[in-house]
Amino acid sequence: MDFEEFFPIWDKLTVPQQNTLRARVISRHVTRGTIVHDGNLECTGLIIVQSGQLRAFINSEEGREITIYRLFDRDICLLSASCMMQSMQFEVIISAEKETDFWIIPPYVYKGIMEESAPVANYTNELMASHFSDVMWLMEQIMWKSLDKRVAAFLLEEMTIEDTNQLKITHETIANHLGSHREVITRMLRYFQNEGIVRLSRGTITVLNPKKLSELESA
Amino acid sequence: MDFEEFFPIWDKLTVPQQNTLRARVISRHVTRGTIVHDGNLECTGLIIVQSGQLRAFINSEEGREITIYRLFDRDICLLSASCMMQSMQFEVIISAEKETDFWIIPPYVYKGIMEESAPVANYTNELMASHFSDVMWLMEQIMWKSLDKRVAAFLLEEMTIEDTNQLKITHETIANHLGSHREVITRMLRYFQNEGIVRLSRGTITVLNPKKLSELESA
Repeated sequence: MDFEEFFPIWDKLTVPQQNTLRARVISRHVTRGTIVHDGNLECTGLIIVQSGQLRAFINSEEGREITIYRLFDRDICLLSASCMMQSMQFEVIISAEKETDFWIIPPYVYKGIMEESAPVANYTNELMASHFSDVMWLMEQIMWKSLDKRVAAFLLEEMTIEDTNQLKITHETIANHLGSHREVITRMLRYFQNEGIVRLSRGTITVLNPKKLSELESA
Repeated sequence: MDFEEFFPIWDKLTVPQQNTLRARVISRHVTRGTIVHDGNLECTGLIIVQSGQLRAFINSEEGREITIYRLFDRDICLLSASCMMQSMQFEVIISAEKETDFWIIPPYVYKGIMEESAPVANYTNELMASHFSDVMWLMEQIMWKSLDKRVAAFLLEEMTIEDTNQLKITHETIANHLGSHREVITRMLRYFQNEGIVRLSRGTITVLNPKKLSELESA
């Protein structure tokens, strides 16, 4: 698969811009667990996912984490190039949740094109608006939704992503997605188990009653 | 004062773009408490504050509120023109905290210029990045900071804005800024009073010990 097919506004670039991108884009393959971008240390550039799954998150000084968004095939991440913009004053960390192939457009290559091209700048606006909307959605969840609903929503999302009701995921990982503590998640999952919604076993959460989970989420 | 002086990249516009903006910009004056933009109902456009104070917030179905950011003289609000962008899928409400003079650039006027102008599109990116950074900052506060520190930070911010240690603000208003409940804020303020940090009287919070407040915030 060609990079050009994954870059949504390829045909709005000039020929010199296309040539620059072709010459400068970097292809990478990472295994599960790799830190792809550590906002505090580096300015990676735009990430374009060919295939796999990435996770963008922030963390606290105490090491708690919360997932901001996830990236799947064809998704593009702008926040890994946040150094391009003066006003972007926060950093995310991006890690691979699965084996992932992706491209990186170096930040100063992209910035150069963006500054001269209205279509690229407008496209970048849409990318940022999309990340921004994810974060606002998350904020509303955190502010107005109780944790049981958020855990229910997370399990349903995982079932969709993995296409199975047997989720190989630790309580610690769920806590890190939701910005919570492992103990709190364990307590919640035990409550779900008592209600007959899930069955817990070592390293696996089996969803027995997706309908009830879904009712709980939207209650 | 002229609108042109308040629009930061005026000299990067073409003469026809300048003429369009001059002809289409709307000047408004509102009293304290006016809802300037209700995201669920309307697409107002870009707001440019000449003088005064505006507050952007979101609310829950139950009527709880949380302040996203505030706008002061010369600040520009992009989220009141969120309809301009397909990927912007959330809405804010903007109300006047003080008597305020501002300009509105209608969304389709701005969008037209942004689509043809790389400098305007790039400037818009910076505006959005700035709002986005405010929200990420807020999210980190909510996730990792306890409410006592957030109340302390809010009181210190108010003291700076109003340039006084006698704050005429209700507990309900503080709750609406911080996404909390009035009862919770009252309890917290009484604790501050017991510690000798503030004195509470009807409609007024007097900060007696700003140093202690500041230590509490950064503890």
